[in-house]
Amino acid sequence: MNFASIFFILGKLIEIEGVLFLAPAIVSLFYREKEGVVYFAAAVICILIGRLICIKKVERQTYYAKEGFISVALGWIIMSVTGCLPFVITGEIPDFTDAFFETVSGFTTTGSSILSDVECISHCSLFWRSLTHWIGGMGVFVFMLAILPMTGAHNMHLMRSESPGPDVGKLVPKLGKSAKILYSIYFGMTMLQIIILLISGMPLFDSVTLTFGTAGTGGFGIRNDSIAGYTYAQQLIISVFMVMFGINFNFYFFLLIRRSLKTALNMVEVKTYLGIVAASTILIMINAWHMFEGFSDAFIRSFFQVSSIITTTGFSTADFDKWPGFSKSLIVCLMFIGACAGSTGGGFKVSRVIIMIRAYMRELRHFIHPRLVKNVYMDGRKVKDETVSGVMIYLVAYVLVLIISVLIVSIDGFDFETNFTAVAATLNNIGPGLSVIGPTGNFSGFSVLSKYILAFDMLAGRLELYPLLLLFSPSTWRKK
Amino acid sequence: MNFASIFFILGKLIEIEGVLFLAPAIVSLFYREKEGVVYFAAAVICILIGRLICIKKVERQTYYAKEGFISVALGWIIMSVTGCLPFVITGEIPDFTDAFFETVSGFTTTGSSILSDVECISHCSLFWRSLTHWIGGMGVFVFMLAILPMTGAHNMHLMRSESPGPDVGKLVPKLGKSAKILYSIYFGMTMLQIIILLISGMPLFDSVTLTFGTAGTGGFGIRNDSIAGYTYAQQLIISVFMVMFGINFNFYFFLLIRRSLKTALNMVEVKTYLGIVAASTILIMINAWHMFEGFSDAFIRSFFQVSSIITTTGFSTADFDKWPGFSKSLIVCLMFIGACAGSTGGGFKVSRVIIMIRAYMRELRHFIHPRLVKNVYMDGRKVKDETVSGVMIYLVAYVLVLIISVLIVSIDGFDFETNFTAVAATLNNIGPGLSVIGPTGNFSGFSVLSKYILAFDMLAGRLELYPLLLLFSPSTWRKK
Repeated sequence: MNFASIFFILGKLIEIEGVLFLAPAIVSLFYREKEGVVYFAAAVICILIGRLICIKKVERQTYYAKEGFISVALGWIIMSVTGCLPFVITGEIPDFTDAFFETVSGFTTTGSSILSDVECISHCSLFWRSLTHWIGGMGVFVFMLAILPMTGAHNMHLMRSESPGPDVGKLVPKLGKSAKILYSIYFGMTMLQIIILLISGMPLFDSVTLTFGTAGTGGFGIRNDSIAGYTYAQQLIISVFMVMFGINFNFYFFLLIRRSLKTALNMVEVKTYLGIVAASTILIMINAWHMFEGFSDAFIRSFFQVSSIITTTGFSTADFDKWPGFSKSLIVCLMFIGACAGSTGGGFKVSRVIIMIRAYMRELRHFIHPRLVKNVYMDGRKVKDETVSGVMIYLVAYVLVLIISVLIVSIDGFDFETNFTAVAATLNNIGPGLSVIGPTGNFSGFSVLSKYILAFDMLAGRLELYPLLLLFSPSTWRKK
Repeated sequence: MNFASIFFILGKLIEIEGVLFLAPAIVSLFYREKEGVVYFAAAVICILIGRLICIKKVERQTYYAKEGFISVALGWIIMSVTGCLPFVITGEIPDFTDAFFETVSGFTTTGSSILSDVECISHCSLFWRSLTHWIGGMGVFVFMLAILPMTGAHNMHLMRSESPGPDVGKLVPKLGKSAKILYSIYFGMTMLQIIILLISGMPLFDSVTLTFGTAGTGGFGIRNDSIAGYTYAQQLIISVFMVMFGINFNFYFFLLIRRSLKTALNMVEVKTYLGIVAASTILIMINAWHMFEGFSDAFIRSFFQVSSIITTTGFSTADFDKWPGFSKSLIVCLMFIGACAGSTGGGFKVSRVIIMIRAYMRELRHFIHPRLVKNVYMDGRKVKDETVSGVMIYLVAYVLVLIISVLIVSIDGFDFETNFTAVAATLNNIGPGLSVIGPTGNFSGFSVLSKYILAFDMLAGRLELYPLLLLFSPSTWRKK
């Protein structure tokens, strides 16, 4: 293991987090909040520590698969530990476990909260809380690749460890440029949403923080009723942007940079994803019709909730825990499907679901015509056998993590629905679940053990399992 | 598709079912029950129809994969439709859907019931209900292979379609002889349990019917409180036999026929299975300690329930729906793991779980040492890549059936725990679930649609998905 490389990149990471702390510090100046001092101090300390670690130039700065996975896993944990300290020091979330849980939930764009009252939190802390969503959405290592002149030959492994999807590729031959393109699209869409929300009459602070939550598909709100208090128009704007941020960013690359509308519109993942959103919205409108007040209410609430859950954002405008059984099961189902690969959303990813179903159809056909070659196709190209088996193994790892987590969390003694959806909501980076942790509840009732397990699930879900599993696997650290 | 072969074997099947109907008919003579007339008539009619169908000798009697799967799927459906008619005609289960559900539940050794009061059912019908478990346990096509002189070259596909496990093989080179050995072991163990139960003081009728339920890992009882009313000693005997019938029958083959104790004891699947039973019993004893009256009560109830669930039998001596959260989650977990491959039990099967976990560990190691060859070993031998990928695809199919079933069943509007465990309990051929369908509840509250979906799940679970999925897949019937 090349420890020098790992230390170096972690140093850079702490420095970047220091710079990020300046944002809430500046916000505090506007609102004259004393909590801002903590963020200023944190910024200075982090920048100093980061510089100190990186003072020694690393000769052979390479990140093979192993270093890539471990750097990313450690990086996200360090980022969360550091990021939660201001909450503890300002006393707004005095307990370390709770503050850590909340920050992991932020960076992993989960949006599960232990706070029962967010409206008593200072503006600068709310801003920091939402900013973690924006950073975590596209990924901090991808950010680093976009802004730092990295010389190593294998940096692809860093990007691959942090970016979601069964088969992460570069958009253009140069990795740094790919990262820059991704962040440009991300930044552009974020600005667009802020501007449209401002035009709709939403205050600046709300527009910026809610956009952060939408763009990262995070879900932290700044009001106790999440998004329910905003106008229908604003809810609709947020819905549309949630769906947009859940689309594979390759789509925007083809559309905006390559200007190939045809390639973009032919992406089977995007079509399937939009199809699922439309079908689910209609099904919920029909099934829960009696819970709504007329057509537009039914449409906006259903569409909002479907978008919010499938993109794993987790905003809510309705207490879907009270919806009828079918709608609830559908919501749980959408939790697992998740958004597109290569988007800021979580979950199992639509492309993995497509590959799985096609591999299964192929198997069925193979039973009937044993001489057929067993190939899986997507977007007109053959999916590599390695990718197909990778998706299967991913499902295995996913199910194992799910089962073990549910078992441990259930020691707390909540009902099965709470335990199961708590793990589903964290592992898929959604936010709220059903029952105790439904849209009107929160995660504060869980034991310390459960909170760390759920925090592990959030990180495992965001980084797509392997970085975390490798970090905690003894064989990684065993000398050969 | 070779339809002639399929018709021929279905004819044989109906004839065999006719012979089986004679058993409850004879029982009715002892108890002087008028319901016996129905079983006598059914026997005669079935034997006649079966003979009629098979009157034309089939020239080329071959069962390739496709014919094997379709014969088995159709066979099980026909067997269930025919088998439920006496319930309807005697008026003991007047509704066809309910009677069909109950019979599918019997043959698939699920044990889910729509009856709220079994004690008002006649002895001959109770006997038939339990006999379906015994037949379904080892499989009716395996029985046919054991008793009929089958001349076809590819009959292996019939056995493979009906026998559980990721890699079904013959015990000895001759298929017919393999089937005979399996049924001999099965019959011997069944007799042994009946005798031991008789010695323990259990009445003959109870001993025989409960042994049928144990041997097939079915779970239909003949009392409303299932097994709770019997003595501790009798409960313990049933527990031990449940565990024994959940063991891979290769174990008994090595032990009794090959007389190789070492090979038998070294089977990793059996060791893992017994380890899971022991560990789960201890964990539940600790977790639910306050629900029991002292050590022996805790041990016997925990051991009984663990054995009953992991072997997918579904007998109950305690209302585990009232146990604490962790014990309930563990029970749900055991539902999915299931018994050993090559046993009469259902579920995902311990060997599949082992292959999955080893494939996953191999993947993790591969990340760290990319040059390692990706092999999975079991019992000292390399598992074929085809088997490993087969297990993965099986998981995919399994998850898809699970999700779609839960979605449809939840239209009925029950809570999530009921919907999820109803599908889990039927797909894994267990019997009771949690909440509405817990040990004290039953399945009568579901809609007709849900009952057929759950019946489909029972058949799909017992036949390990593919026969049923192929039967209902359009591409099977499409002309090439």
